[in-house]
Amino acid sequence: MIQAAIVGGTGYTGVELLRLLLSHPEVEIAGITSRSETGIRVDALFPSLRGHCDLIFTEPDMDRLGNLDLVFFATPHGVAMEMAGKLLDAGARLVDLSADFRLQDQEVFAKWYDQPHTAPETLAEAVYGLPELFRTEIRNSRIVANPGCYPTAVLLGLAPLLQADLIDRSTLIADCKSGVSGAGRTGKVSLIFPEVGDSVQAYGVSGHRHRPEIEMVLSRIASDPVELQFTPHLMPMIRGIHATLYARLHVPMDNGELQAIYQKAYGDEPFVDVLPFGGHPATRSVRGANLCRIALHQPRPGQIVILSVIDNLVKGAAGQAVQNMNVMHGFPETLGIGQIAVLP
Amino acid sequence: MIQAAIVGGTGYTGVELLRLLLSHPEVEIAGITSRSETGIRVDALFPSLRGHCDLIFTEPDMDRLGNLDLVFFATPHGVAMEMAGKLLDAGARLVDLSADFRLQDQEVFAKWYDQPHTAPETLAEAVYGLPELFRTEIRNSRIVANPGCYPTAVLLGLAPLLQADLIDRSTLIADCKSGVSGAGRTGKVSLIFPEVGDSVQAYGVSGHRHRPEIEMVLSRIASDPVELQFTPHLMPMIRGIHATLYARLHVPMDNGELQAIYQKAYGDEPFVDVLPFGGHPATRSVRGANLCRIALHQPRPGQIVILSVIDNLVKGAAGQAVQNMNVMHGFPETLGIGQIAVLP
Amino acid sequence: MIQAAIVGGTGYTGVELLRLLLSHPEVEIAGITSRSETGIRVDALFPSLRGHCDLIFTEPDMDRLGNLDLVFFATPHGVAMEMAGKLLDAGARLVDLSADFRLQDQEVFAKWYDQPHTAPETLAEAVYGLPELFRTEIRNSRIVANPGCYPTAVLLGLAPLLQADLIDRSTLIADCKSGVSGAGRTGKVSLIFPEVGDSVQAYGVSGHRHRPEIEMVLSRIASDPVELQFTPHLMPMIRGIHATLYARLHVPMDNGELQAIYQKAYGDEPFVDVLPFGGHPATRSVRGANLCRIALHQPRPGQIVILSVIDNLVKGAAGQAVQNMNVMHGFPETLGIGQIAVLP
Amino acid sequence: MIQAAIVGGTGYTGVELLRLLLSHPEVEIAGITSRSETGIRVDALFPSLRGHCDLIFTEPDMDRLGNLDLVFFATPHGVAMEMAGKLLDAGARLVDLSADFRLQDQEVFAKWYDQPHTAPETLAEAVYGLPELFRTEIRNSRIVANPGCYPTAVLLGLAPLLQADLIDRSTLIADCKSGVSGAGRTGKVSLIFPEVGDSVQAYGVSGHRHRPEIEMVLSRIASDPVELQFTPHLMPMIRGIHATLYARLHVPMDNGELQAIYQKAYGDEPFVDVLPFGGHPATRSVRGANLCRIALHQPRPGQIVILSVIDNLVKGAAGQAVQNMNVMHGFPETLGIGQIAVLP
Repeated sequence: MIQAAIVGGTGYTGVELLRLLLSHPEVEIAGITSRSETGIRVDALFPSLRGHCDLIFTEPDMDRLGNLDLVFFATPHGVAMEMAGKLLDAGARLVDLSADFRLQDQEVFAKWYDQPHTAPETLAEAVYGLPELFRTEIRNSRIVANPGCYPTAVLLGLAPLLQADLIDRSTLIADCKSGVSGAGRTGKVSLIFPEVGDSVQAYGVSGHRHRPEIEMVLSRIASDPVELQFTPHLMPMIRGIHATLYARLHVPMDNGELQAIYQKAYGDEPFVDVLPFGGHPATRSVRGANLCRIALHQPRPGQIVILSVIDNLVKGAAGQAVQNMNVMHGFPETLGIGQIAVLP
Repeated sequence: MIQAAIVGGTGYTGVELLRLLLSHPEVEIAGITSRSETGIRVDALFPSLRGHCDLIFTEPDMDRLGNLDLVFFATPHGVAMEMAGKLLDAGARLVDLSADFRLQDQEVFAKWYDQPHTAPETLAEAVYGLPELFRTEIRNSRIVANPGCYPTAVLLGLAPLLQADLIDRSTLIADCKSGVSGAGRTGKVSLIFPEVGDSVQAYGVSGHRHRPEIEMVLSRIASDPVELQFTPHLMPMIRGIHATLYARLHVPMDNGELQAIYQKAYGDEPFVDVLPFGGHPATRSVRGANLCRIALHQPRPGQIVILSVIDNLVKGAAGQAVQNMNVMHGFPETLGIGQIAVLP
Repeated sequence: MIQAAIVGGTGYTGVELLRLLLSHPEVEIAGITSRSETGIRVDALFPSLRGHCDLIFTEPDMDRLGNLDLVFFATPHGVAMEMAGKLLDAGARLVDLSADFRLQDQEVFAKWYDQPHTAPETLAEAVYGLPELFRTEIRNSRIVANPGCYPTAVLLGLAPLLQADLIDRSTLIADCKSGVSGAGRTGKVSLIFPEVGDSVQAYGVSGHRHRPEIEMVLSRIASDPVELQFTPHLMPMIRGIHATLYARLHVPMDNGELQAIYQKAYGDEPFVDVLPFGGHPATRSVRGANLCRIALHQPRPGQIVILSVIDNLVKGAAGQAVQNMNVMHGFPETLGIGQIAVLP
Repeated sequence: MIQAAIVGGTGYTGVELLRLLLSHPEVEIAGITSRSETGIRVDALFPSLRGHCDLIFTEPDMDRLGNLDLVFFATPHGVAMEMAGKLLDAGARLVDLSADFRLQDQEVFAKWYDQPHTAPETLAEAVYGLPELFRTEIRNSRIVANPGCYPTAVLLGLAPLLQADLIDRSTLIADCKSGVSGAGRTGKVSLIFPEVGDSVQAYGVSGHRHRPEIEMVLSRIASDPVELQFTPHLMPMIRGIHATLYARLHVPMDNGELQAIYQKAYGDEPFVDVLPFGGHPATRSVRGANLCRIALHQPRPGQIVILSVIDNLVKGAAGQAVQNMNVMHGFPETLGIGQIAVLP
């Protein structure tokens, strides 16, 4: 049993972390902080937790947090990097769900997040928290950068092809569709129901923060620079990411060979499900579950289409954070995050 | 550990029963039947279950079913009453999620379901499976009629006032809003997305099958005939029922007294949550959870408005069925159905 | 051809007014004002208008506005009453889509809108702009208070029964379901897609601003005080109001008599459609149209249920404002607002 | 004034054609046929038309139809090719909204529509009805094949680049997102609200009927074979198609040059709106309107992303059919189809 806290728990990743941690057998939630909601009961803000949670939002207290086994950051970008160093010094381990420690290149971070990185030493030791790719490093790390939601879906979808050096590295395309919860629990006109309901719209087509994050990891996998065209779209749905990935094979392969590569890559992974070749996973098939479902297509010889779906708040955020926690603390990796998707 | 089967598992109550039973520690699912899908893997029909369920739909086999501890019927109306007698004789206990054993009056059944009741003796011993009202009878029964989704929300909302004989019995109104999954997993034009999306429509205003069911139970509670105006509406949402209930007090009561009556009635109930007086429960606060949330209002003296929400597939169907199973078999009542609602 | 302007055109009623006025053959839009968007092209804010509208938002200029034939206020509450007097003095006529001139009793206004009324003299001459009930007064008025969206649906649904003194005046109930656009184009957390999507929730059950407005008009029709229980609900849809109205007959009437009363009341009304007895109008059947569809039910003798649906932005706001303009200026009442609903 | 009829008017393209034709000043609707709904009032099936349409569905009568000026086919595939020859012989002109006359190669038709083409001679004279590309041929044709919804969005998005021979013809990708109405008004389980709500899913990724249609036209434009990867997705929305198109430039061009090519191509087109470079059109900005909005991006030198949105039932079906009618009969091309989009 470990003691953990959540810093900045008033957003959707916060409530989702609570949903998962409250029934996790090896975690005691020692606190949840919010500067804006201090003193408020958590279940007053999130009525879904009534009867399951007596916590009250408190001001962050560095001494208290530093004494815990694990601190989750579910804060806006820029907060975790201010607090991380002290907490690590005090002995806590960290899982940061914000973007502060995802981009290893400080200049890239500064460019895309409009602020300089203020904790370069901590950044240097942060591990990218995609367990399917970096499990060993995560196990031994003190600070894990939980991946973005889009990057999770895209990276799991493309990794096996790049690892095996089967595809062209300059023509990759990720056409991604996201539910609105990915934009956070924030009162913007552009997010209200009449603006996003019954409509589809792309955004950030000329450039989006998740592109350098994805390219960084893809390049590491390929041991060579990888370029990706990344196109996010906002969908009239609450949860879910559907990544439609386009790649071109270097050399001819038949469908069975392709399928075998993915089954080998993910056959032992509890949270990646490779569908039969030619399948079409729906985002609802992973709603509420810590799972990425992937299906492969080769419509014309050499033209590969990979469909990869996750729940952006689970495998794309809170569920993956708990998975990282399990890895870091030596718990069974599936502990507390084996829920079946809620369908319909 | 008991052995249970699901007869007719291709609808939404079927997949929801599976979601709950697959992680229930005291149940082994001995089989799931479907005449139309015999031989098909269950997770081929419901991809959300991939990795959790190796079952295959089979033809119903009366001998096999009769030897089990419990059989759930998730069939269309009319099927359970044909099979129930034999299964009971063979020693199985039954939870019927269809309407076959809900209406004790055969003529009322025949009128509203357009078919005669063919198992009057079994009907006579069937118990109405709303544990909060009939827990003792359920515990000892061989056959439980799982309530309809609307009746569950309405009955839990009105019962305390009728039990205490506080309201007029001829002016009750239940204005109910339901998600589309309540209409079943069936290919009707009237249910396709472009027909129900971005629109609201009442149906069955002049008469609906759930009215006699609700009135039967309310009358039993009140020990006197109760008349209800029941108005269902179809909403552009997947899950959830919101019952807005109107009643008139016999005698003046202040809000605190009213609230106390509900808190006393449901204070020990694990699956009924009474909000602070004047609250507004959202259906999403119970999405995926076996829970009814209730809030009370008295906008003008004597005019009571009760808001009661459930997930129609959980507390309104599969979750309640598992709750009944727990009661029947002496398991802790919350076993396997304590999931937190998925929000957002 | 008249010259008209819109004050405060950045909300949903603003863009809807533009949609209708831009193709109205007797109106020239002389300007549209917005303090926050001054200098911005209207079609930059509302891309649906690209190619139809070259207007630019300007600061409100009292001299210019006063010289126009008609000024529409699509402002937040409190703005119109500051400007109305001067514009009337300058010779303009006004249609106010805000609530400033709806409630004739200043104290009632002050109570529900949390501000004193600052233009009592103008208020005294304002006419309630529901043409089906007050056409003659509207024709001759200088200032018309465009009704709220809920009141429009409820009043058209109940008026014939009260006019004929057929129902009890103390047990009326209006259970109303609204699309989210009724809450305005405003960046509140409670309105973002993940908060209202796939969920239903009541609000303001203990008291809502539209209740006194409805009761004021109903009492005027009945020449006697009328009490209404009004319960609004927020639905996961963009446009539309569905009012489910409950009333009790004084004296027995059969369904044909009831139907005849409504057909007589609305037979000549171009914007009220009485469905065959026992119908179930869907809100989508009026999407984008200036129309109220009504259907009647008598589930038990004496218990009347009336279903009344409108598009909250058209017959509940902008369409009705244009209808009022047509009446005020002697144009054919249907001019420019005869569009067929967009279905699906 | 011409006389026109609709054959097969019970689907979504049928009701949308009626919405447009009923207010078209140069068309009298001489009849609407449906074998399944013969004798039923049209507004009983489509209540949105109440008050606007007294038509009754009739059996198709070849003699009557042949005497009309124009017959629209809104039938399932396979019907128009049986009737077209006789109607042409009798002197009627035809606009076919089904796929029967879109694919000039009979073998390709047979392969993708699972039936042989039975009217090869009529097929030979059919013109592809995309007025922006083939206006002259349409003007003089007796039979126009109205394009599919996806092809309309994709072709308008890609045509200018291919006409100018600026892009590689073997690496084109069209990632398309469609509302559910594109699947028709048909009672399939896969289309009901709980199946498509709050979820996204690709379909037909390995092959879809609209790919050969798009490639046929693109190849004609390019005067050379063009290959396209076409990936359709089903979205939880009613109307709308969003095509996200990926192309690679042969030679470097700056953004201004690119934009100029599109503005030149579509500057005079009333129904194609080119947004400022780098824009993000939402499908709702064309809801209910006969319009295609296009925006261009060049995220990296040489990598072009084109966003193209339409309402699948208007510019993607019924609106385009009326546009073709206008061209064929020499009416102003915008007559009757200049409606502003309904937003929100």
